[in-house]
Amino acid sequence: MDDATAPDPEGLGDTELAALDAHWRAANYLAVGQIYLMANALLTEPLRPEHIKPRLLGHWGTSPGLNLVHTHLNRVIKARGLDALCVWGPGHGGPAVLANSWLEGTYSETYPDVSRDAEGMERLFRQFSFPGGVPSHVAPETPGSIHEGGELGYSLTHAYGAAFDNPHLVVTCVIGDGEAETGPLAASWHSNKFLDPVHDGAVLPVLHLNGYKIANPTVLARLPEAELDDLLRGYGHEPLHVTGDDPATVHRAMAAAMDKALNRIEEIQRTARRDGVRERPHWPMIVLRTPKGWTGPAEVDGLPVENTWRAHQVPLSGVRENPEHLRHLERWLRSYRPEELFDTGGRPVPQVLACVPGGARRLGATPHANGGLLVRELPLPALEEHAVAVDKRGTTLHEPTRVLGTLLADVMRATAERRDFRVVGPDETESNRLGALYDVTGKAWQAEVYATDEHLARDGRVMEVLSEHLCQGWLKGYLLTGRHGLFSSYEAFAHIVDSMVNQHIKWLRTSRRLTWRRPIASLNYLLTSHVWRQDHNGFSHQDPGFVDHVLNKSPEVVRVYLPPDANTLLSVADHALRSREYVNVIVAGKQPTFDWLSLEEARAHCARGAGAWPWAGTEDGTREPDVVLACAGDVPTQETLAAAELLRRHAPELSVRVVNVVDMARLMPHEEHPHGMTDPEYDALFTRDRPVIFAYHGYPWLIHRLAYRRAGHAHLHVRGYKEEGTTTTPFDMVVRNDLDRYRLVMDVVDRVPGLSVRLIALRQAMADVRSRHHDWIREHGTDLPEVADWTWGSSAAAEEVHAWRGGE
Amino acid sequence: MDDATAPDPEGLGDTELAALDAHWRAANYLAVGQIYLMANALLTEPLRPEHIKPRLLGHWGTSPGLNLVHTHLNRVIKARGLDALCVWGPGHGGPAVLANSWLEGTYSETYPDVSRDAEGMERLFRQFSFPGGVPSHVAPETPGSIHEGGELGYSLTHAYGAAFDNPHLVVTCVIGDGEAETGPLAASWHSNKFLDPVHDGAVLPVLHLNGYKIANPTVLARLPEAELDDLLRGYGHEPLHVTGDDPATVHRAMAAAMDKALNRIEEIQRTARRDGVRERPHWPMIVLRTPKGWTGPAEVDGLPVENTWRAHQVPLSGVRENPEHLRHLERWLRSYRPEELFDTGGRPVPQVLACVPGGARRLGATPHANGGLLVRELPLPALEEHAVAVDKRGTTLHEPTRVLGTLLADVMRATAERRDFRVVGPDETESNRLGALYDVTGKAWQAEVYATDEHLARDGRVMEVLSEHLCQGWLKGYLLTGRHGLFSSYEAFAHIVDSMVNQHIKWLRTSRRLTWRRPIASLNYLLTSHVWRQDHNGFSHQDPGFVDHVLNKSPEVVRVYLPPDANTLLSVADHALRSREYVNVIVAGKQPTFDWLSLEEARAHCARGAGAWPWAGTEDGTREPDVVLACAGDVPTQETLAAAELLRRHAPELSVRVVNVVDMARLMPHEEHPHGMTDPEYDALFTRDRPVIFAYHGYPWLIHRLAYRRAGHAHLHVRGYKEEGTTTTPFDMVVRNDLDRYRLVMDVVDRVPGLSVRLIALRQAMADVRSRHHDWIREHGTDLPEVADWTWGSSAAAEEVHAWRGGE
Repeated sequence: MDDATAPDPEGLGDTELAALDAHWRAANYLAVGQIYLMANALLTEPLRPEHIKPRLLGHWGTSPGLNLVHTHLNRVIKARGLDALCVWGPGHGGPAVLANSWLEGTYSETYPDVSRDAEGMERLFRQFSFPGGVPSHVAPETPGSIHEGGELGYSLTHAYGAAFDNPHLVVTCVIGDGEAETGPLAASWHSNKFLDPVHDGAVLPVLHLNGYKIANPTVLARLPEAELDDLLRGYGHEPLHVTGDDPATVHRAMAAAMDKALNRIEEIQRTARRDGVRERPHWPMIVLRTPKGWTGPAEVDGLPVENTWRAHQVPLSGVRENPEHLRHLERWLRSYRPEELFDTGGRPVPQVLACVPGGARRLGATPHANGGLLVRELPLPALEEHAVAVDKRGTTLHEPTRVLGTLLADVMRATAERRDFRVVGPDETESNRLGALYDVTGKAWQAEVYATDEHLARDGRVMEVLSEHLCQGWLKGYLLTGRHGLFSSYEAFAHIVDSMVNQHIKWLRTSRRLTWRRPIASLNYLLTSHVWRQDHNGFSHQDPGFVDHVLNKSPEVVRVYLPPDANTLLSVADHALRSREYVNVIVAGKQPTFDWLSLEEARAHCARGAGAWPWAGTEDGTREPDVVLACAGDVPTQETLAAAELLRRHAPELSVRVVNVVDMARLMPHEEHPHGMTDPEYDALFTRDRPVIFAYHGYPWLIHRLAYRRAGHAHLHVRGYKEEGTTTTPFDMVVRNDLDRYRLVMDVVDRVPGLSVRLIALRQAMADVRSRHHDWIREHGTDLPEVADWTWGSSAAAEEVHAWRGGE
Repeated sequence: MDDATAPDPEGLGDTELAALDAHWRAANYLAVGQIYLMANALLTEPLRPEHIKPRLLGHWGTSPGLNLVHTHLNRVIKARGLDALCVWGPGHGGPAVLANSWLEGTYSETYPDVSRDAEGMERLFRQFSFPGGVPSHVAPETPGSIHEGGELGYSLTHAYGAAFDNPHLVVTCVIGDGEAETGPLAASWHSNKFLDPVHDGAVLPVLHLNGYKIANPTVLARLPEAELDDLLRGYGHEPLHVTGDDPATVHRAMAAAMDKALNRIEEIQRTARRDGVRERPHWPMIVLRTPKGWTGPAEVDGLPVENTWRAHQVPLSGVRENPEHLRHLERWLRSYRPEELFDTGGRPVPQVLACVPGGARRLGATPHANGGLLVRELPLPALEEHAVAVDKRGTTLHEPTRVLGTLLADVMRATAERRDFRVVGPDETESNRLGALYDVTGKAWQAEVYATDEHLARDGRVMEVLSEHLCQGWLKGYLLTGRHGLFSSYEAFAHIVDSMVNQHIKWLRTSRRLTWRRPIASLNYLLTSHVWRQDHNGFSHQDPGFVDHVLNKSPEVVRVYLPPDANTLLSVADHALRSREYVNVIVAGKQPTFDWLSLEEARAHCARGAGAWPWAGTEDGTREPDVVLACAGDVPTQETLAAAELLRRHAPELSVRVVNVVDMARLMPHEEHPHGMTDPEYDALFTRDRPVIFAYHGYPWLIHRLAYRRAGHAHLHVRGYKEEGTTTTPFDMVVRNDLDRYRLVMDVVDRVPGLSVRLIALRQAMADVRSRHHDWIREHGTDLPEVADWTWGSSAAAEEVHAWRGGE
């Protein structure tokens, strides 16, 4: 163990120590003030109950530790001219980070009404955890932040995301010991196996062991120090320990540890950039062990508080009613000697600001935390270079994601110098047919490489690790610092990051309402290996519900696309990669899929988001169709077109319209989503009163939930995935879920009025094929030949049905 | 590092070695057979293309390692009379576990048509990854399994769940090095801080480093061994390394490591149970490093396969078409010398079975893996002992979860000897007001305890760790081995386990269709600290969508309850804790909530699941009401009743019905969910044509998605959470989302036909109060007095409105 508390010959001078301590005390004072006070901010008179907020909703426990880290980061940033960003992991870290931002002036620059004076201080206090004010957690509203401190677990992965391709940036990441118990955080430590000392910046983790969560000790804080050290070395770090409760001792130790860590980082980077990397570096980190609620009340009502779990929230809770608590609070506040820290106008005195850096070096002002200031247009190729030719619809097959891969490779190539584009995925980039990327870049990898390995590269910009949490967190940190990217995942396992995407959508929704936050690139998901094609994975890999999950969230942020073929996927991806401040979810299969639209048609269709395919239907334009066959998703589109073909041949008397939906939000009311159709648009496309048989990729109820207000809703009949899954063939999957072409034809017959003998016979013929399928698949393990060999416009299947109908 | 490869004086004899190797070769042969063959299982004739399956969908890479572990577990189970269970973590482990189950006879006992002979072997081969057959992953269909191997990350936490309160059980857990990269798995290692050597069994992790995922090396396999050792010691384990590619050497090393690990486990348990526990034990574990696809093709088409990522799936992929591949496959299969392993009837020869244990000791036969065989009725107290008295409705307040806590404490007390009930939660049991549990038991904790700690206990049956993943996994493992429990969580963060609950629902859905799997206790979620009461946490903690997520899944498994007060929560919890094979989601607040129903009324209301509250409405029974005010959830119920009161006073001419829904599935069609109302039931309650103003706890679209088929759907108007959240007061939250009492009254006025001057004035008065609220909250930071002081039947609010209307 490397003990940073050993005396350092170049240690802090007394003046510097005094200035650091003054800054720290000022920040602590401001943190307590935010939790308790709504008036008398400078304690110019004795505290009275009416100075106290009516509802005490803050959290004190974590604040002094965060204030210490911020104070010492100020010092090294100023002394070294460091380009720095800090990710504040601990929950309820708001009071500390806001205090520091106010001290350094960035808060008042961002929110001029909260000025750096007595009046502003009172506003700062009052607004905290107050209706219409600011949250208790670090949040989008917090200058200098790229990380919401509410849901725990993601700080370290966000920090790595910020550091990738930012070679001159040092990202400090404060990790609470509560957060450290989560799965995502536990996995994040290994991110250092993916950090290139040449092209990436550095991450300096500060594990803050204050010992307690809400009501319990933390696991890591109760490990014997040697065991903790083993763990951190096992994670690939060189730990530096800072331990104590005497402020001066801790200041000296913290300054020494910071210097040592930054020196080591510089050395690693200098060597790597000069001589190349020979082996994976062991990066420094700091273990900071200080009391929870340090400098707060040691004891309240006879029970110990400081350095126990009782310091987590509001240590003195009865301040308005209990005069003893009120006096205790005043003693506590005065213990920071505010009269030494602020002048009579409430402005911080020069000593407090002595260690604070200036301009954009301040942690609250770094442009890296407001990535929209840095983001550049992504150089996207002309789609013509990647589009597939469609001479005869529905007869040629392409793997849509493989086609997309060539476009992504072009983007990767065009950003080779800029390095502001990455593709992340859980070990599935090749499996998801995006392998063209490897013609241009490798997979980031800093560990040992064997001769049999392929595509591993220290400077690779494809990131693969078997953790959706890391993929999501890395990309999120990367985007929030002004870059671009795409996350490709198996559709079902996108649910692993449900809660993370919630937080990102909330972040974007809030950011859009803050004028000072500039728009960042969208978070783009490519969900592939989807529910209908889990031939060898089966039931456990079948879940199309991520779309449902995101569509519950803020409509201003969320976009969902289901392109039915290769060219529509290109068009959608092009749009998503150019867009800002959205979460775009694209669902597209990787298996060979029929080409339906030329590039030109695909562009027009995707621009509309939903439209009729006149070539697929049989209506003549003189009247409303008898039935609308609607579809969304590649497999449902194929089944719908096959059904349309059967109807065209066997029920030519029916007027059929085929509608394809790419942009799911088009179905929503115009008032609820900016992409939503107006009612006249919707009625023109789907009719007001004709049966609509809608073949949807996912859970059928979603369509009802989107379209329930439409006039024609009562006539809407949706087929989709209803949790009937297993290891089986593609066609058997659609049969099991009643989404197959034959079932769709039966649905039409069941819903058009005025049944003819022809239609009744057709329905029976459809039922017969399904029954034959049932026997065939058990015997052969493959799909019926007429399904396997089907192409649009071929008549094999049709003839077959025709024959069974007795050659009528 | 402790090297298990050192010679052991009590090592394997040659006979035993030969027997182990024969068993291992037999299992390998059967694994390859499952992937490739549909005929000629015993290779009685040269392989021909028609013996090969038309679609090759298996995964070979992980099989030989799993077969090795199973073979050696057989040995120690038999030699030691061990009570053992194994959790097979690696994905696509099906072929190996099925092979072993068939060899030991449990497969044929479970599925008699797959007999332990030539005919059964051919069935075993053919059914694998075949339509209507069995999945590639370990799954519910696999005898001896409690763990689906499809979605990775949860094996170790399931293993711990199985070990808790099973003091005589040893749970081996094979962890793939791919899975080890996930967050949940990374966090699971620290589960050993919660395992009591006295009352719990042991977990023996076997980290299988075969080096590769689908297309990449794994992080842990490329750590230098000393660094990996640091990591594992940091996790609190004593690692034993077994490394090699020579079968005999590895057999000897594996046998020695198994013996050493089990001896150490016995020693830890013996000492702890005799002398008490002085310090947290450092449990042994095994690091098994063998080649991926070991014993498979070394090279195919000139590219290396064995010991590379190319061995992951089907090493020879063109067997039906490529004669060279076919010959290669035959050589590979014959390399196991099947003629030595099976007699001419296809039965395993005695040498193969020499190390296999008998009866219920076999891993495929242990009752712990079919927990329904072991589960006992939970001793639940009479609800009368815990119910709150309701003398005057809506005037007394209780914290519902605190009342529930006393019931749970009784259950905990009644199971003190049996030890088959646990409550898990992420550091929130006290915060969620379930603290009564600590009168009976403590929080499981094996690390150091300080004087200031409260309620920590080595044998505690409350489990707290800041990881929803661990909570979920522990409880799932506990339930699947025949015990009971409850998971309490902040509502928003239940999404963290979305994907895990998916897998459990799929497991239960599949298990229900397997007659040999007996029903286990339900997985019960208590979602509290819900969306409407995040006063200090704000937007990041607001998400009621877990209900939407689970309601997409199999209706035979999923139940969702929103009890509106303390007594209804008791009734719902009692029902959930008695139930079997469900996932019950209960959403209930922890904040003081009005008592609406006596226990007797609560029981009747919960039994119906939804019903009118005649005392709250104004209809006289002579005709259909003018409007239905429906509600689900505690906060919406309060607002609805307050709205009903306003209407009673200010619009007495309106006939109002108040309906409360507890069981959300009641809204679904009877054909889609077993709890769904028939249409006549629904119409009788909600009417077919009167406006229904539905105040719902969560996203409003859910109600439409459930009720879209109902006759009255066009008249259904739903209010709920629409992502308007922040740090604010409870009433401001409902105002921001248009769910408040005043808005509900306005909704009624907007929807009843035939507006009177009175109603128009009432609507304006409601708008005025909302506007006054807006100003008040910015000024005072608290709710309007008439809202804060409101109780059912008081007229303060009503008078106030009355006054504003000009005393009309």
